[in-house]
Amino acid sequence: MASPWLGQQSLGSEAVAMNNKGFRRGSFQGSTSDEDMVEIAGRALDFSITDDDPPLDREMLGGFSLYNGGGMNGTSQMMDFLEEPLPGVGTYEDFNTIDWVREKSRDRDRHREIASKSKESTWALIHSVSDAFSGWLLMLLIGLLAGSLAGLIDISAHWMTDLKEGLCLSGFWFNHEHCCWNSNETTFEDRDKCPEWESWSQLIIGHGEGAFAYILNYFMYVLWALVFSLLAVLLVRGFAPYACGSGIPEIKTILSGFIIRGYLGKWTLIIKTVTLVLAVSSGLSLGKEGPLVHVACCCGNILCHLFTKYRKNEAKRREVLSAAAAAGVSVAFGAPIGGVLFSLEEVSYYFPLKTLWRSFFAALVAAFTLRSINPFGNSRLVLFYVEFHTPWHLLELVPFILLGIFGGLWGSFFIRSNIAWCRRRKTTKLGKYPVLEVLVVTAITAVLAFPNEYTRMSTSELISELFNDCGLLDFSKLCEYVNDFNSTTGDVLPDRAAGPGVYTAMWQLALALILKVFITIFTFGMKVPSGLFIPSMAVGAIVGRLLGVGMEQLAYYHHDWTIFSGWCSQGADCITPGLYAMVGAAACLGGVTRMTVSLVVIMFELTGGLEYIVPLMAAAMTSKWVADAIGREGIYDAHIRLNGYPFLEAKEEFSHKTLAMDVMRPRRNDPVLTVITQDSMMVEDVEAIINETTYSGYPVVVSRESQRLVGFVLRRDLIISIENARKKQDGIVSTSIIYFTDHSPPLPPSSPSMLKLRSILDLSPFTVTDQTPMEIVVDIFRKLGLRQCLVTHNGKLLGIITKKDVLKHIAQMANQDPDSILFN
Amino acid sequence: MASPWLGQQSLGSEAVAMNNKGFRRGSFQGSTSDEDMVEIAGRALDFSITDDDPPLDREMLGGFSLYNGGGMNGTSQMMDFLEEPLPGVGTYEDFNTIDWVREKSRDRDRHREIASKSKESTWALIHSVSDAFSGWLLMLLIGLLAGSLAGLIDISAHWMTDLKEGLCLSGFWFNHEHCCWNSNETTFEDRDKCPEWESWSQLIIGHGEGAFAYILNYFMYVLWALVFSLLAVLLVRGFAPYACGSGIPEIKTILSGFIIRGYLGKWTLIIKTVTLVLAVSSGLSLGKEGPLVHVACCCGNILCHLFTKYRKNEAKRREVLSAAAAAGVSVAFGAPIGGVLFSLEEVSYYFPLKTLWRSFFAALVAAFTLRSINPFGNSRLVLFYVEFHTPWHLLELVPFILLGIFGGLWGSFFIRSNIAWCRRRKTTKLGKYPVLEVLVVTAITAVLAFPNEYTRMSTSELISELFNDCGLLDFSKLCEYVNDFNSTTGDVLPDRAAGPGVYTAMWQLALALILKVFITIFTFGMKVPSGLFIPSMAVGAIVGRLLGVGMEQLAYYHHDWTIFSGWCSQGADCITPGLYAMVGAAACLGGVTRMTVSLVVIMFELTGGLEYIVPLMAAAMTSKWVADAIGREGIYDAHIRLNGYPFLEAKEEFSHKTLAMDVMRPRRNDPVLTVITQDSMMVEDVEAIINETTYSGYPVVVSRESQRLVGFVLRRDLIISIENARKKQDGIVSTSIIYFTDHSPPLPPSSPSMLKLRSILDLSPFTVTDQTPMEIVVDIFRKLGLRQCLVTHNGKLLGIITKKDVLKHIAQMANQDPDSILFN
Repeated sequence: MASPWLGQQSLGSEAVAMNNKGFRRGSFQGSTSDEDMVEIAGRALDFSITDDDPPLDREMLGGFSLYNGGGMNGTSQMMDFLEEPLPGVGTYEDFNTIDWVREKSRDRDRHREIASKSKESTWALIHSVSDAFSGWLLMLLIGLLAGSLAGLIDISAHWMTDLKEGLCLSGFWFNHEHCCWNSNETTFEDRDKCPEWESWSQLIIGHGEGAFAYILNYFMYVLWALVFSLLAVLLVRGFAPYACGSGIPEIKTILSGFIIRGYLGKWTLIIKTVTLVLAVSSGLSLGKEGPLVHVACCCGNILCHLFTKYRKNEAKRREVLSAAAAAGVSVAFGAPIGGVLFSLEEVSYYFPLKTLWRSFFAALVAAFTLRSINPFGNSRLVLFYVEFHTPWHLLELVPFILLGIFGGLWGSFFIRSNIAWCRRRKTTKLGKYPVLEVLVVTAITAVLAFPNEYTRMSTSELISELFNDCGLLDFSKLCEYVNDFNSTTGDVLPDRAAGPGVYTAMWQLALALILKVFITIFTFGMKVPSGLFIPSMAVGAIVGRLLGVGMEQLAYYHHDWTIFSGWCSQGADCITPGLYAMVGAAACLGGVTRMTVSLVVIMFELTGGLEYIVPLMAAAMTSKWVADAIGREGIYDAHIRLNGYPFLEAKEEFSHKTLAMDVMRPRRNDPVLTVITQDSMMVEDVEAIINETTYSGYPVVVSRESQRLVGFVLRRDLIISIENARKKQDGIVSTSIIYFTDHSPPLPPSSPSMLKLRSILDLSPFTVTDQTPMEIVVDIFRKLGLRQCLVTHNGKLLGIITKKDVLKHIAQMANQDPDSILFN
Repeated sequence: MASPWLGQQSLGSEAVAMNNKGFRRGSFQGSTSDEDMVEIAGRALDFSITDDDPPLDREMLGGFSLYNGGGMNGTSQMMDFLEEPLPGVGTYEDFNTIDWVREKSRDRDRHREIASKSKESTWALIHSVSDAFSGWLLMLLIGLLAGSLAGLIDISAHWMTDLKEGLCLSGFWFNHEHCCWNSNETTFEDRDKCPEWESWSQLIIGHGEGAFAYILNYFMYVLWALVFSLLAVLLVRGFAPYACGSGIPEIKTILSGFIIRGYLGKWTLIIKTVTLVLAVSSGLSLGKEGPLVHVACCCGNILCHLFTKYRKNEAKRREVLSAAAAAGVSVAFGAPIGGVLFSLEEVSYYFPLKTLWRSFFAALVAAFTLRSINPFGNSRLVLFYVEFHTPWHLLELVPFILLGIFGGLWGSFFIRSNIAWCRRRKTTKLGKYPVLEVLVVTAITAVLAFPNEYTRMSTSELISELFNDCGLLDFSKLCEYVNDFNSTTGDVLPDRAAGPGVYTAMWQLALALILKVFITIFTFGMKVPSGLFIPSMAVGAIVGRLLGVGMEQLAYYHHDWTIFSGWCSQGADCITPGLYAMVGAAACLGGVTRMTVSLVVIMFELTGGLEYIVPLMAAAMTSKWVADAIGREGIYDAHIRLNGYPFLEAKEEFSHKTLAMDVMRPRRNDPVLTVITQDSMMVEDVEAIINETTYSGYPVVVSRESQRLVGFVLRRDLIISIENARKKQDGIVSTSIIYFTDHSPPLPPSSPSMLKLRSILDLSPFTVTDQTPMEIVVDIFRKLGLRQCLVTHNGKLLGIITKKDVLKHIAQMANQDPDSILFN
């Protein structure tokens, strides 16, 4: 029977194979070479993952139990033939969308039950109180776990990054900095060159000077990089394919109500933690910030299993995951408020106020756990601690806005190139050799990175150095200015002429910029954990520092120009190149991710001074406007679309003038909607419908002629109920009539006994009229989190709109008229 | 005809009188003695303000025009008999609730139109771009205006507060601090006593010493206070009755979709700004923070008139008002991020991401405008700048949590007492004499405040002093410690024994606490602008400081106790009483307002150090839990309920197990629903229905027998359309049949011509089934911002639920079972 809606078989039952290790495999970011793995996600805009017809083939025979809830208020009414819900009740199949309304109703039922019991006994009262506080306890645990893991990752990555260059003799477990902690060298310059720390050439051939030693060090650097990245990609492919990438697009999709089993599971957690350290240490152009969000969400998901309230309810669990994402960003940058705003602005779908409070709590606990572990050894909470001494001048907004424009351009360039490359990887043979790909990219990165000291160091160290405001005691090349001690008065360090070191550093930074810009495009999306906060920030920080030094020298040599008069006279400290680096970093990060408020707040938390919010804001806003004018999507949304996840964007308003009748199934020439009547169909009729169609549910009407809607019944419930009745209830045969009505008429004694199924009927399906504009329908789907909505005309049932139909329609409209949303 | 829904006449037409100055008067916070003013809001839970039947009596005859929009997609279809919408189209009556869905639809229509035109000409393209950026321009203007006004208020209030004590000889417009700016006295101690500044006794009798001078100063202090408060209350009563109170409860209500004309108008702005200065200067126990939010919202509302996009759309305007509220808090505390979060957490109803970005921008601009004005003369952005030198110890969480408990207890005590007093004011004769009330409270405050130096100074100065961390150069009484210069090493100032000054200060602070606690209860709700952030913070800061000093002395004298060992040895600086004051202030403010995240962020912005977030969080959370356990509502919600505003709380989940059929009208024994049929009623039938009932709209059905719902038609549209047709269309008589159908049947030539009214029919009314749980209905009303929702059963129209019905039902349920929501 040709079916108007939901024609495809769910991929959940076909496409996910189990490997012999017992955990699920899947590939979201590209195809793999394994023959037993099937590409799960289709191409862009191919919403082939049906979220509406749960595959029942496997569970049907196994008596996988009754699906509780059924409708919104069915829970208490459906117990008429089954006393206790069987295990597995109310769960969803993999790759399905949850019904938010139903989940919330279930939670409220649960809550009501506990509240009413709490008056009966002291024990129940204690249970009720502990239930109320379990959310907070869970947040505490998530914070502790996420903070500890972040500390562990920081410490290990630091050690392994240094391992590429040498080894500590006083204990191989010390990194370079700790190794030289107690060194006798007192000058800052020589601190790095303590005798306990030996480079590989010193260890192998006994000395560190000369061409051979350099080549040996070079070789060891590349070798370690390859070993680390090989280990990382093998672990990901062998144990947890979901551990690759940044994870943020998938987490966004999961938070919007999609189910991907195992994506936040314990294997993903373990493997992602280990491989993240390896990937960062290998020197690839990637960061740990995005994956840390994934790690924190895994923690949140796993810890949910400790509490029934969260284990059994998908909607409640998503509240926890939103908070966990906040904790993840909080530990990634040491910015708890920024973390909460990131979760609110970028990741979460539903973010009620209660979640805001809890997110904040979790983010704080995580940040302080990390601070107690103290991975940076400076008891600072933040990743890049900066302190500037000079205020900025209003005229400097011009270069800041230029940095914003650069950030926007780079952001859109990066997104386009990266998406093009990822699509190529998905569609060509390239995707068949992920291990080789990782090795090649690592080799290229390592070979090109070693000769340049700014690429040889880890990217976060590079950013730290670029953000740094040169003091008198700084001896890095970037601070090699011509000192004129006569003009120095007290703490104020005037603008000075750049020394040769600064010029060398400029060239090296320019080369580093080119490398970072191109290699990042190929790195993001490979089969290793990879975040792009840090590479984006590095690109911006380099450009910002270059511009800042340029401005500084301009102001030094031409302080008589009109634009400098009044605020930048000779001997004044007016330009801070470190601030330019920071603004540039914010601009580029903003261009790639399209964050604004959370970005500015994160940066604000790094500096701790409200002083610099305006430059950051100016750059972030410009960057977003420029990038939005070129391409509307941020990198995460672009990856969501590339992978075809069923994600209903909440930021964009749907602005096309279509009606519900244009979107609903059946379309004009399709056969009529399959319906079940409430009191005239026999068991065999219903079974025939079930066998002939694959829809996940059927509307129930008063009669075929009137098409008056009574309710909606889920396929799964129907199958299980009939199955059950045939087994356990006497007299149910194929000719028994199924009644969905409240009261059934008295039957003549000769006829077979009837089957009452009102309890599984959802009596409050959502309906809209056929004349409802689609913008309102989209709003309803978004705000209420529906799976389907029935369409009526003058009280008669006409059709159905599912979430999939809505997504397809939005995609079609966007393709037709790509620039109409530009100035929204 | 007895009507099932909406029986009352709107108060909008009856209850608001115009006085002869031409602006509207009303009283939300209490009754007044004017005879021409009628109490608008009823008592608690009396939702007598109907939001569903706009009074048409006045406009009907004036041809006040057709109500555009009609339904969600009616705009383009209804132009068949009127080419241009007349002025006033699509506006709402005073004291009505807006329909968010319709407003949003209209904005999208407008946007589509501009977007489609933009392709036609360059001019239209420029218009389209400028339209897109007008939101940002508006934010800029709001920030500038709000920042300037806040600066003006700060400067004037500072000057006038000092005027109570004396005058500056070198220029009467200088306040005490500026007057002594260039004084020759170089020690900090004597800075306040410069010769240019003369107290009133010095000015009048020539010397400032002795009992008579003291009495004279006392007298002048009380006199000025009375003059200021008298002026304030007279201005409020004479020109802008809406200018009283804090304004936050009303702004919350307005943001949820209610209309109160003039509440955010220019007169309210001017009078509130002036009287706020007067009220603060009079020394009453009130703050300027809440009213500043109201002032900023007035700015936002007035500036909206510059842009068609915002002037004509109530939903868009509310987005602007949310941002303006953020700007208000931003200037009140100098905390832009905290301001945005305050708007998100406490004030706003709909807060889309776009509003988040814009709020942040407005808040930043406002903060920097204020900083450029520099009202505090220290180029600090924040109201209370604090810098602490000592980290806190984990064990100190115990006193911090104790402060949280105190804050919670005080918060609920304050709310209960204040509400009880306000209710008394509303219901007894007390409310008839607002001017006298203000004078009496001012007199009591001033008389009791003068003798105690901590109450004589302005409350914000007091808080600043309490927050202060005593350095070696501080010579205030609170810092009079026994200095042991031998143990002082460098910057670290160890805990010291308290000197006599500290003990005196303790007593004075304890007395100040008692005064503040009681007088604030009577002050908040009087007919002057009054915020309660500052008084609440003062109470908490005093308690915190007392506890902090106590802890400090305990640690000093008993540093050998086990609890102090390890972190608080002799000569260590371990307890910071200023931090205790700050934590106490946060706790009390949290207890009164139930803010959490925004509170902590505001406090964090004051200190600028992430270090102190955990104590603040601990106190704020404890305070909220304790206060929530005693009474669920914050002060703003309590005032909303007291005044009976139609506010649908978004924070609380509705958790009762009732169904739509229990709430809908008509109830079981009521007469049936009044409906209009789509093609069988004559003009006179419809006119009869309109005359007999007062409902704001009527469902249209296929036929009375089938009760199949076709659409919903608004009373206003119906009246205007019939009126119009009778005038302009030939052949429309009382027996003409009204058709709501798409196609009308051919009529015999003898019958009167028909009236087609499909264009005013809303073809997509929201419907739910009678079995839908109320929790879902409440959710739909909240999330979609509906005014009414139709109820069906098996496709037949059964009844209607309005927002008023929902609010009534929630109130009934809450009264039945007050503690069921305790552990939500």
